[in-house]
Amino acid sequence: MSVIKDIEFVKEEYDYEVPFHITGHVSTSTKLITIRLHLDDGIVGLGQASRSFRVNGEVYDALWQYREALLELIKGMDVRNYKRIFDEIDKFSRTAPSLKAGVQFSVLDALSQLIQMPVFEILGGRKDFVESDMTIGIASLEKTVERAKDAREKGFSVLKLKIGEDLKSDIDRVLAVSEATKGAKYIVDANLGYSPKEAIQFSDAMYKNGVDIAILEQPVNVHDFDGLRLVRYNSQYPVGADETIKTKYDALRIVKEDCADFINIKLMKSGISDALAIVEIVQTADLKLMIGCMGEGGIGIAQSVHFATGTGAFTYHDLDSCFLLKNPDYIRFRAEKNKLYPTL
Amino acid sequence: MSVIKDIEFVKEEYDYEVPFHITGHVSTSTKLITIRLHLDDGIVGLGQASRSFRVNGEVYDALWQYREALLELIKGMDVRNYKRIFDEIDKFSRTAPSLKAGVQFSVLDALSQLIQMPVFEILGGRKDFVESDMTIGIASLEKTVERAKDAREKGFSVLKLKIGEDLKSDIDRVLAVSEATKGAKYIVDANLGYSPKEAIQFSDAMYKNGVDIAILEQPVNVHDFDGLRLVRYNSQYPVGADETIKTKYDALRIVKEDCADFINIKLMKSGISDALAIVEIVQTADLKLMIGCMGEGGIGIAQSVHFATGTGAFTYHDLDSCFLLKNPDYIRFRAEKNKLYPTL
Repeated sequence: MSVIKDIEFVKEEYDYEVPFHITGHVSTSTKLITIRLHLDDGIVGLGQASRSFRVNGEVYDALWQYREALLELIKGMDVRNYKRIFDEIDKFSRTAPSLKAGVQFSVLDALSQLIQMPVFEILGGRKDFVESDMTIGIASLEKTVERAKDAREKGFSVLKLKIGEDLKSDIDRVLAVSEATKGAKYIVDANLGYSPKEAIQFSDAMYKNGVDIAILEQPVNVHDFDGLRLVRYNSQYPVGADETIKTKYDALRIVKEDCADFINIKLMKSGISDALAIVEIVQTADLKLMIGCMGEGGIGIAQSVHFATGTGAFTYHDLDSCFLLKNPDYIRFRAEKNKLYPTL
Repeated sequence: MSVIKDIEFVKEEYDYEVPFHITGHVSTSTKLITIRLHLDDGIVGLGQASRSFRVNGEVYDALWQYREALLELIKGMDVRNYKRIFDEIDKFSRTAPSLKAGVQFSVLDALSQLIQMPVFEILGGRKDFVESDMTIGIASLEKTVERAKDAREKGFSVLKLKIGEDLKSDIDRVLAVSEATKGAKYIVDANLGYSPKEAIQFSDAMYKNGVDIAILEQPVNVHDFDGLRLVRYNSQYPVGADETIKTKYDALRIVKEDCADFINIKLMKSGISDALAIVEIVQTADLKLMIGCMGEGGIGIAQSVHFATGTGAFTYHDLDSCFLLKNPDYIRFRAEKNKLYPTL
């Protein structure tokens, strides 16, 4: 037996190197809960929750209050029966999805120590490493270009640019970046900031100028499935759904209603269990996948590195929060420039 | 490293205790290929293919000719990267799906020995055991009732009755069985034998007589998705798709086109990889699942016992071929009456 004895929540907080500005929101630091899952045999499984109020509605101080209810549900369960434990944790998928992700990962992490096989191999071991993009928040044209050139020089070939606050300046900024970083690919993320018609105008402006847009991500509002489809049918570029997709049920709806070319999985929205289902659904429907992050530190990014390499399901990897924070602990993975390798 | 060195195919053949009669087809024996996957460290992973000409179009003698092509694709691969290996084996999903299943399982079986954790736990460990139904082939009314009573006395609470050759005698037989085995549930399987309207007539006759039909399985032709939906919308009972569903793509079509209440997964149709995807798709769509078999012997049924307990996804388990054959080897599972327990 290797059964769950206790769950410990540990506070972590990191400042961003540069305040992180997206549509309607600026972050200067990230507050995390690191999960230490104690088994009766002394194994401690690690996981991490990076809560999001904007996407999930989660409040940091409230998340701490879920510990006892969680423990009550899964105490005494054997980590070898990990999907039984996932089902219990899944009860928090609406109110505390980031905890769902972190605790589910901590179960896999404990199991991986028990069987001495890293989590990415438990999940299938499809890739040895993944390459992350680099995200550049909303800033002045000059600063955006400077940061993009810097990222390009550091070896990042995919740049994720935040747009969505002002159509005209977004177009100017992305054109300037594309001029200054020839040969890169761009994921542009409006974070709900456009109307469908603004998104189509943005797309047209990019296309006329020959910019290599890999994904036009979440141009419209969370619940606007029809608007997303409208953009998809009228953009020359693949359209991605991010905030719109939290659970596997959302993903199936996107597939049924033909609303997107890409789905952005974030463990902090879906946990491990729904993320696994979304992978199968999206691959069967022949759509494509990217994986993103919130403000995770080292162990949080490790979760996504193991998930992404294990399932091997993703065309693009936006796992850069560990690069954007001041000195987070790297654990369970190592980085070689933009390449992220899972480790035991 | 624990890499694949060789694949050995071993012939097995078992007679049925009683010739097995379904719509348009009688089997007196089952011919199997047991797979022995040799790793360089001495581990031998076991799997089994039970080919079906009727469902998959597979010819037994032809399957032997795939061994070298299979080996060429996966030789030297590490079983810890099992989904990479699955992707290679998936290339046989059209021409040799039963081999796909057996070889994919042999990879998991080898991995399970390596990490000393049974396959059902690698897959999530959701259940400790499952209960099988008992299938009764097409026979005279008297023989059907006798066999049904016998199965009921042996502890089987779900009886699967083969119908589909003659509507009138099917109705008489099922009513007689239900009279003689009160309290049982019945899965009735027409194996493509009815027109949609015959299926609806059958369903009406059962409903008027209060028979507890759990699933009206595959009433209509393989490619008749619309006919299946017509039966579904006009039957008081859950309608199941079996022969219609082979790959995960078929399952997604059933979901999109709203054609069934149940999907019958058989590893011999889908292999492990598509079966895993079908589980996620069907659960997300809130349909239900049963798991069935072809003519597998002991190791073949073990595969489905591990899959069914690991994923914990199935409402009904039709894993009775090992009961219907003369003395197959039981391995990787044990049976206590109708209860099937996975073992290492």
